[in-house]
Amino acid sequence: MIDRLNERIRQLDAPVVVGLDPMLKFVPEHMQKKAYQELGETLEGAAEAIWQFNKVIVDAVCDLVPAVKPQVAMYEQFGVPGMAVYKRTIDYCKGKGLIVIGDVKRGDIGSTSEAYAVGHLGHVQVGSQSLSAFDEDFVTVNPYLGSDGIRPFLEVCKKEHKGIFVLVKTSNPSSGEFQDRLIDGRPLYEWVGEQVARWGDEVMGCCYSYVGAVVGATYPEMGKVLRKIMPKTCILVPGYGAQGGTAADLAPYFNEDGLGAIVNSSRGIIAAYKQEKYAQFGPENFGDAARQAALDMIADLKTVR
Amino acid sequence: MIDRLNERIRQLDAPVVVGLDPMLKFVPEHMQKKAYQELGETLEGAAEAIWQFNKVIVDAVCDLVPAVKPQVAMYEQFGVPGMAVYKRTIDYCKGKGLIVIGDVKRGDIGSTSEAYAVGHLGHVQVGSQSLSAFDEDFVTVNPYLGSDGIRPFLEVCKKEHKGIFVLVKTSNPSSGEFQDRLIDGRPLYEWVGEQVARWGDEVMGCCYSYVGAVVGATYPEMGKVLRKIMPKTCILVPGYGAQGGTAADLAPYFNEDGLGAIVNSSRGIIAAYKQEKYAQFGPENFGDAARQAALDMIADLKTVR
Repeated sequence: MIDRLNERIRQLDAPVVVGLDPMLKFVPEHMQKKAYQELGETLEGAAEAIWQFNKVIVDAVCDLVPAVKPQVAMYEQFGVPGMAVYKRTIDYCKGKGLIVIGDVKRGDIGSTSEAYAVGHLGHVQVGSQSLSAFDEDFVTVNPYLGSDGIRPFLEVCKKEHKGIFVLVKTSNPSSGEFQDRLIDGRPLYEWVGEQVARWGDEVMGCCYSYVGAVVGATYPEMGKVLRKIMPKTCILVPGYGAQGGTAADLAPYFNEDGLGAIVNSSRGIIAAYKQEKYAQFGPENFGDAARQAALDMIADLKTVR
Repeated sequence: MIDRLNERIRQLDAPVVVGLDPMLKFVPEHMQKKAYQELGETLEGAAEAIWQFNKVIVDAVCDLVPAVKPQVAMYEQFGVPGMAVYKRTIDYCKGKGLIVIGDVKRGDIGSTSEAYAVGHLGHVQVGSQSLSAFDEDFVTVNPYLGSDGIRPFLEVCKKEHKGIFVLVKTSNPSSGEFQDRLIDGRPLYEWVGEQVARWGDEVMGCCYSYVGAVVGATYPEMGKVLRKIMPKTCILVPGYGAQGGTAADLAPYFNEDGLGAIVNSSRGIIAAYKQEKYAQFGPENFGDAARQAALDMIADLKTVR
């Protein structure tokens, strides 16, 4: 799957992932109203609103970008109906040829991580049947529990040719609280990065590993160091746009082959119509605004690769 | 909710939580068969099997223990039907007077953590309605992203009088890979523990904080130190029984008031019928075996408090 991701990045000349984090406040009023009229102001109604919203966004960007990254929390907050729309979104995106990165940040000990790995990337055995549940192409994983928590994902990745992105240095302001603490003179995130490279060596695609890393755009100096520590790792970069990262910040995340990083933008694209820059589209044409924002982001990134 | 948890621990004289981690292999053959006959060897069939299994276990232990801890991964692996049974299990347990600790180990940055907090512990706004989604009483949370990831949970805990357990030192063999690394001469888990105590000071119940910690039974020496660092923190202790922790290991986790810790056992109770010790019950009476195992665990813990 990492090979397919790189192939699509090259074909589209766009190392861009659109974050499908549909907060209700991003869904235009008229679309919310319609969903509530059908299903009431219920969890089902909210889930329907974000599903209709997602479809428009996906249709608008699916020929421009290689991948989408639904943030499961935005679906999970609407309970079971929300999770049903998370799954429907995954299937819809895959049907449109998009690679799906489930931003689930799961991570637990052995048998529990195995259940997550199987449920999100693999197949679960039910009687004589081997069934897929959520079936993303990649998921994000939290490393705090160490190798025990990661190995079950590696096994499933090997078997299914899928991938993970392990949190190394996150984009948020307080990410340094633990991640930046010095251990034998080097920050924790570097130790995690080294471990990611080691895990990745076990599950290699043709040039890059099935094991990627998450490194926020908001810390370019650290990104530079981590690029060197993890040369064969694809870096998923959140924090561009809304969180303050600029294209100039992103140069160190790429390798000389122009690959090695895929940059996420969520609200900067899906809620573009709410920005002054794209306000002329209006809430009715939020899909067109998203398309324009994606085109602008792709152009912006071309300046640094 | 922490006050209610402590009250129930005192009433029942049982600082015990039953982990509802129903792997399919724990569900007796006859029960699996029945579910597959009804719904096929499908995700729905698997979910039905674990739901029927859970009901028997919950009925068997609900008057003995204050709390249960469903491990969401074991439901999530069966996709949307699995999540529906996760929710049904929460509701069923609450109906039986049990406190529900959702073992979800979620954690993300600001607005995303807020969505998790709202979806699991709080209320989500849909139009004019304020709705609960999963509605556990507590959830487990991963600290790797720092305060940004925790604060949204604190806000919801304050509002809803609910609680969280933050991973500090997990029970698995490789937990030390990052958690034990020394920072200014002290292991990372101690720094996390100090932060947990600080977060907890903001959200106090009558004697203990709404913010608890997860510290594995498999590391009693570390538990002793963490007990001192987090005096008002309720420690959720996994790793008893199946993972190797014994009652003697647990003494340091309790305060002098006999409170301050709640010990989890999952397969040791729910799959007791598979142990030689409880084999006489047979697969048909797996609920009775679970009840006996819970009684034995409660008696075992009385020797150390």
